[in-house]
Amino acid sequence: MFYKESVMQPKLSLFSILILMHIQPTPSADAKDSTPACQKLQPVNINQVLISDDFWAPRIRVNRETGLQHALGQLDEHGNLSNFAKAAGMIPGWHRGSHAYDSDVYKVIEGAAYSLMIHPDQQLENFLDKLIDNIAAAQQDDGYLSTSFILEKPEEKWQNVRREHEMYCAGHLFEAAAAYYEATGKRKLLNVAVKLADHIDSIFGPGKRYDVPGHEEIELALIKLYRSTGESRYFNLAKFFLDERGYAHGEERKPFDSSGLIRFSTPPQNREERIRRIMVRNGRMQDHRPVIEQTEAVGHAVRAGYLFSAMTDVAAATGDPDYFNAVTLLWKDVVQKKIYLTGGVGTAQYYDEGFGDPYLLPNDKAYSETCAQAANIFWNHRMNLLHGHAKYIDVLELSLYNAFLSGVSLSGDRFFYRNTLTGSERSRRQEWFDPACCPTNVVRMFPQIARFAYAVDDQGLYINLFVAGSSKLDLNNRSVKLTQETNYPWDGRVRISVDPEREESFSVNVRIPSWTQNGPLPGDLYRYAKESAAQIGIGLNGHLLSDVPLKNGYASIKRTWKKGDTIEMEFPLPVRLVLAHAKIEADRNHTALMRGPIVYCFEQIDNQDLFLSPMSELQLDEASFRPEFRENLLDGVVILRGTARIKSGRNEEGKEIELQAVPYYSWNNREPGAMAVWIRTDPQR
Amino acid sequence: MFYKESVMQPKLSLFSILILMHIQPTPSADAKDSTPACQKLQPVNINQVLISDDFWAPRIRVNRETGLQHALGQLDEHGNLSNFAKAAGMIPGWHRGSHAYDSDVYKVIEGAAYSLMIHPDQQLENFLDKLIDNIAAAQQDDGYLSTSFILEKPEEKWQNVRREHEMYCAGHLFEAAAAYYEATGKRKLLNVAVKLADHIDSIFGPGKRYDVPGHEEIELALIKLYRSTGESRYFNLAKFFLDERGYAHGEERKPFDSSGLIRFSTPPQNREERIRRIMVRNGRMQDHRPVIEQTEAVGHAVRAGYLFSAMTDVAAATGDPDYFNAVTLLWKDVVQKKIYLTGGVGTAQYYDEGFGDPYLLPNDKAYSETCAQAANIFWNHRMNLLHGHAKYIDVLELSLYNAFLSGVSLSGDRFFYRNTLTGSERSRRQEWFDPACCPTNVVRMFPQIARFAYAVDDQGLYINLFVAGSSKLDLNNRSVKLTQETNYPWDGRVRISVDPEREESFSVNVRIPSWTQNGPLPGDLYRYAKESAAQIGIGLNGHLLSDVPLKNGYASIKRTWKKGDTIEMEFPLPVRLVLAHAKIEADRNHTALMRGPIVYCFEQIDNQDLFLSPMSELQLDEASFRPEFRENLLDGVVILRGTARIKSGRNEEGKEIELQAVPYYSWNNREPGAMAVWIRTDPQR
Repeated sequence: MFYKESVMQPKLSLFSILILMHIQPTPSADAKDSTPACQKLQPVNINQVLISDDFWAPRIRVNRETGLQHALGQLDEHGNLSNFAKAAGMIPGWHRGSHAYDSDVYKVIEGAAYSLMIHPDQQLENFLDKLIDNIAAAQQDDGYLSTSFILEKPEEKWQNVRREHEMYCAGHLFEAAAAYYEATGKRKLLNVAVKLADHIDSIFGPGKRYDVPGHEEIELALIKLYRSTGESRYFNLAKFFLDERGYAHGEERKPFDSSGLIRFSTPPQNREERIRRIMVRNGRMQDHRPVIEQTEAVGHAVRAGYLFSAMTDVAAATGDPDYFNAVTLLWKDVVQKKIYLTGGVGTAQYYDEGFGDPYLLPNDKAYSETCAQAANIFWNHRMNLLHGHAKYIDVLELSLYNAFLSGVSLSGDRFFYRNTLTGSERSRRQEWFDPACCPTNVVRMFPQIARFAYAVDDQGLYINLFVAGSSKLDLNNRSVKLTQETNYPWDGRVRISVDPEREESFSVNVRIPSWTQNGPLPGDLYRYAKESAAQIGIGLNGHLLSDVPLKNGYASIKRTWKKGDTIEMEFPLPVRLVLAHAKIEADRNHTALMRGPIVYCFEQIDNQDLFLSPMSELQLDEASFRPEFRENLLDGVVILRGTARIKSGRNEEGKEIELQAVPYYSWNNREPGAMAVWIRTDPQR
Repeated sequence: MFYKESVMQPKLSLFSILILMHIQPTPSADAKDSTPACQKLQPVNINQVLISDDFWAPRIRVNRETGLQHALGQLDEHGNLSNFAKAAGMIPGWHRGSHAYDSDVYKVIEGAAYSLMIHPDQQLENFLDKLIDNIAAAQQDDGYLSTSFILEKPEEKWQNVRREHEMYCAGHLFEAAAAYYEATGKRKLLNVAVKLADHIDSIFGPGKRYDVPGHEEIELALIKLYRSTGESRYFNLAKFFLDERGYAHGEERKPFDSSGLIRFSTPPQNREERIRRIMVRNGRMQDHRPVIEQTEAVGHAVRAGYLFSAMTDVAAATGDPDYFNAVTLLWKDVVQKKIYLTGGVGTAQYYDEGFGDPYLLPNDKAYSETCAQAANIFWNHRMNLLHGHAKYIDVLELSLYNAFLSGVSLSGDRFFYRNTLTGSERSRRQEWFDPACCPTNVVRMFPQIARFAYAVDDQGLYINLFVAGSSKLDLNNRSVKLTQETNYPWDGRVRISVDPEREESFSVNVRIPSWTQNGPLPGDLYRYAKESAAQIGIGLNGHLLSDVPLKNGYASIKRTWKKGDTIEMEFPLPVRLVLAHAKIEADRNHTALMRGPIVYCFEQIDNQDLFLSPMSELQLDEASFRPEFRENLLDGVVILRGTARIKSGRNEEGKEIELQAVPYYSWNNREPGAMAVWIRTDPQR
C-alpha cells in the first residue's frame, strides 16, 4: 500500500485492533458562549511538558540554537542591546532605532527564559544576566525606563502614549521579567518591572491621568505581573487601561463616537463621516469605542490580538459578563469573517497591518503579519482556558502550523513579516526586520508551544495538541504523567499513556479537531469540497470505547485511571479540497488543499506547468492526490502529488498536468518563485 | 579687466606698488639630499596656528561640526565604540567588525583631540572621556588591548602580527593618547598606551621575539609616544620593528630575498621567480628586504607612507645615514615615477592598494586611496622638517589640495576611498566604509593642516602654506606673531605681517612653490605645456626687495624684524596646460589644466559636449581659458572656462565646443556623471 510505505511507521502497532466510532460534529461557534463564567481551565507550565516529536522538537531546537542566537546577534548589531548601557551612561553613543527597540530585547529575554526552563544553558544565562544589569542600570531613579526617551527626548516622557511605544515596551519588559523570574528565580529584572509598573501606576489611573497606550500590550503584561507578584494594583491598572479605551479625555470623558477627538485636515461633512473617520483612525488602535462595546475586530491586528488577550484575562479573572460577551463576539467576528485559511489575520485594506472588512481576504494583499499570528495564538489559548472549549485550539492549531510557522525559515534565521497566500520571484525571507517585532515573536513562541499542548481542571486533563513527548501534569496536587506517541501531523495515529501517581478517577479530554469534520475551522468560512462524516476510533488498552461523550469539542473519557492505561486513536487524514465562503471574492472559483491541520501550497519549483502565465482554470479531483512522506525534502514533509486537467487556457484545454503541493509553512525555503495556496478551478464547485 | 572683476578683491590694496623680481628655479630633486643630518626644522603646534581663511577654515569647521559627529555616529552604529565595553565585560554582545576596528576609534579620538586644541567643546570631551573609560576598562591586566582578539580569539594574540592588525591598532592608540594628553592634559588614555607599549616591549625586541607587523603604523606611533613620555624604550622598539623588516625569522635571521619564507602553492621555477614572488607578496608590506636597502617605493601605499614616515623620524632623531639615504631615495622614486598629477599615490596593479611599476599611472585604475594621501602628507611633512627643503611641501600641498581633499564631500560626511582621475555615472561618494580607515583619516587630517603651515629653526621662521590667519610661533623662546592675509589658492596675493615680541634679527623664509616654475612638482613627471619664467614680486613694507636669496626652495628674508613689518608678494596664477612624462602611457596625447596648486577636472554636468562618446581629440589653447570665481558654486570655487576645437571625431571635425573645468577636489558634489582630469588632445604637444 502506497500510504503505509511512504509515511513513517508508527512506533507502536496497536492500531490494528482499533474499531471506528462516529463522533458528533462540534457544536456551532455560538454554543454556550452566552454564559459568563470565570476561567474554566488552568494552563500548564512550560517545564511540565517535554516535546520530543519529529515535527516541533527539531524546530524548537533550531529556534534555541540558531534563532535565539541569531536574534541576540541582530539585537547586538542593530544597537538594541547597547541602548541600555548608553541610557545608563556606561558607554558613549546615541540611541539606535525606534521607540520600540527595547521591546525586541525584552521579547528575546522572554523567549530565552522559556528556553532555559526546559534547556539550561549557563552561558546564555550569563549573557542575559549581564544584559539585565544594563537594563537595571538604565532605569531612572523614579522607575522610568525607555532608552529612546531617556537618550533622545526626556522632556517628552509619557506625553503621547497613544503614539509612542513606551507602554508597549514596558509591557514586554513585564512579560520578560515574569518569565525570567519563573525560569531562574532571579528577581533583578522583576524588580525593574515592579519599579516601572509602580511608576506608571503613580501617573495613570482613576483620579490621576486618564490616557491609554496606542499599541496595546501592557494590559496583558500587567496582569502577568500581577500573577507573578500578587500585587492587585497591577491588575487594576490593566483594567483601567482597558476601560478607558474608546473615550476622549479632554474636559470631559466621552466615548469617541460622539466626541471626535482626533483632528482631521478637513472637517467631516456630517456625523456619519465623523464616525467613519474615527472608526478608521482610532479603530487602528481599537480606540474607537469602549472595549466592552466592541463587537467587530478592527484595526491593527497585533494590537487587537494583545488587547483581546487582556480582555479575556479580565473576563477570566472577574467573570465580568460585559468582557465575556465582548471577547466572545470579537472571536466570532474574526473566525467567521476575517481569517485566512492559513489561520492568518490582518489584510492590507485601510492600512497595512489591520483587519479588513468582513470577507475581504485577498491572498496577495494578505498582511497576516507573523506577530498577529502570535497574538492570535496567545488570545485563542486564553479563550480555550476561559471557555474550556476545544474550538479555540482549532484556531490556535491552524495558525500555529500554517500562518505562524510560515513566518520563519526552516533554518530558523530568516523571516517573513507578512505571510501572504501567494508568492512571487521577489518573495524573500529576510535576515531581520526593523522593527524586529516578528522575529522576536518567533523566538518567544517556539518554547511556549509546550504550554498550549495541555490544560487541566479539577475534573481532569485536556489534550489540546498532538505532540509526541512526555508531560507531568498537576491534577489536584497529584501528578499525572502523560506520554504521547504520534507522528502528527503527518500521521493521524496518536497513542496516549496515562500514568497517575496512584489509581484515581478523573477525565482525560482529548480534543477532536474541527478539521476532522466539515472544514478546518468552526463556522462556515471554509469547508471541504466533499462532506464526509469523520470516523475516529478511540481505543483504551486495546479495546474500543463505544460511548465517548463529546464535551466542548473534547472526547471526554472519565474513569479510574491507573498506571499503564493507554488511549489509542486515529484521525483519518485524507487529502481535502477546500472551498471558501462565497463572500470571499478572492477565493471564488478557487480551491485549496489540506491534509489534517496542514494547509498546502503550490510552489513554482515543483509546478512549472501550473505557473505558465496566465494561470488556467483546472479540473481538480481530490481522489487524484496522494500523500508521500519525503524525508529529505524541507526537513521531512508529507507532500501531495496528483494531476489536474486544464479546463480552459491558451491552447491547452484538456491537457493533464502534474501537481505537487508542499506544506504552506515550508514554502520559500528552496529557491525564489511563484507560490499559491488557492488555485483556480472549475466554477461549479 | 575680467580677472579683477571676477576674482574676489584682496583685503588690502598694497599690491599696486609691487615691483616684480625674477626668482631662480628650485634646485633639482637631488640637490643636497646626500648629506645626512639630524632634523633641520622644528614643527609648530596646532594650537599655535589659527586658520581663518575662506578656503580651509570652512572645511575645518565642517569637519568638526559634521565630519567628526558623523564619524562618531558611524563608529557607534557599526559597533566600533561598544566593542570596548564588550571586551571589558560591561555589556553583553559580540565583537563587531574586523581586527582593525579599534584603530578607527583611535583615529577619531586623535582628530577630536586636535580639534579640542583649537576649539574647546565640553560635550565632546565628556563623550571622549566616557569612551576612554571604556577603552581603559577593556585593557587586560597585562596591558594587552585588542577588542577583536579579546572577544573572538584570545588564544591567537600576537600569533600572526604580519597578517593581523593588532600592532596597527596599537599604533593608532598611541597617536590618539599622545594627542589627547596634549589637548587636555588628561593622562588616562596615555596610561593605557604606556601599559600596552610596555606589554609589547616585553614580548618583542632584541633577545625577545623577532617579528614585525604586517601593516606599519606602530613604528611612527611609538616614536610619538617616546616624545610624549620621554621613554626611550619606545623609540628603540620602533627602530627594532623597522630594522627587522625584510628578514625571515626562522632558525636563522636572513634577508627574505635569499630565504623565501613566504609559501606559494607551486614552487618557484628558479631563483629569479622566487625573488619576484617575494617582491610581490612581501613587498605588499615592504617586507621584501631590509628597510635601509629599500630604494623603490613598493607595496601597499598606506603602509609605505607610514613606514617611510617612521624611517624619516629615525633619520631625524639619529642622523643615521642609511635611514637618511633610504628615505631620500624612496621619496625620489615616488615623486619622479609614481605619483599622479593630483598628488595621489597608489594604483591597482599587483593588488588594489599599492604602488605600481614606474610610470604606470592609469587614471581609471588609480587607487590613490585617501589614506595613502594622508600617509604621504604626513611623510612629506617629516621630510620637510628633516631636510629643511620646501620641495616636500610642494608634494604635501599638491596632495592636500587635490588627491586628499577629493576624498571628502563638501558636506563633510560623504567619502571616496579611491580617488581616481576619471569618473563615471557609477561614481558615488559613500556614507562610510568598512573598514573606515579613509573617513577617519579625513577626520584627523583637517585639524592638522595648521601644523603643516609653518616650521621654525634657530635662525627663523618658515612659511609653508599660504593660509589666512594668525599664528604665534616660538623662535628661541621668544614669540613672533605672524598674520597672513590671502585668498589663496584662488588669488596669488599674500600679505604677511611679522610681529616679534621685540625687535630682533631672524629670517623669514617664504616657500616659493614649484608650481610657480615649470610644473607642479619637483622633477619632470609633469610639466607645463608652455615654459614661462615665473615672476614673483616680494615687497617689504611697500618696497621691493631686490636681492632675496632662494635657500632650499624658500625665499629667505633676513633682517631685524619689528612690529608692523609686512611682506607682500604675488604668485602669478595663469591657467596652465599640463603634460605628463612621455613614459606615462595613460596620459600620452592628453592634457590637464592647473591653476596654482589646484588641479582641475571636467565634469559631465558642465561639459555635455566633451563626454559625447567616443571622446574626441581636441585642439586646446590655454589662452582661451579664463578663471572665474563662482561664489555660489561648490561652496565658492574658481572655475576655468574656455573653448576647444574638435580635431578628430565623428562628423564633428572642426566644431568648437565650450569647456568648463572645476577643481578636481570638488567633483562629485553635485550629481553623478563622467569626470576626467586628462583630456585627449593634439598628439604633437
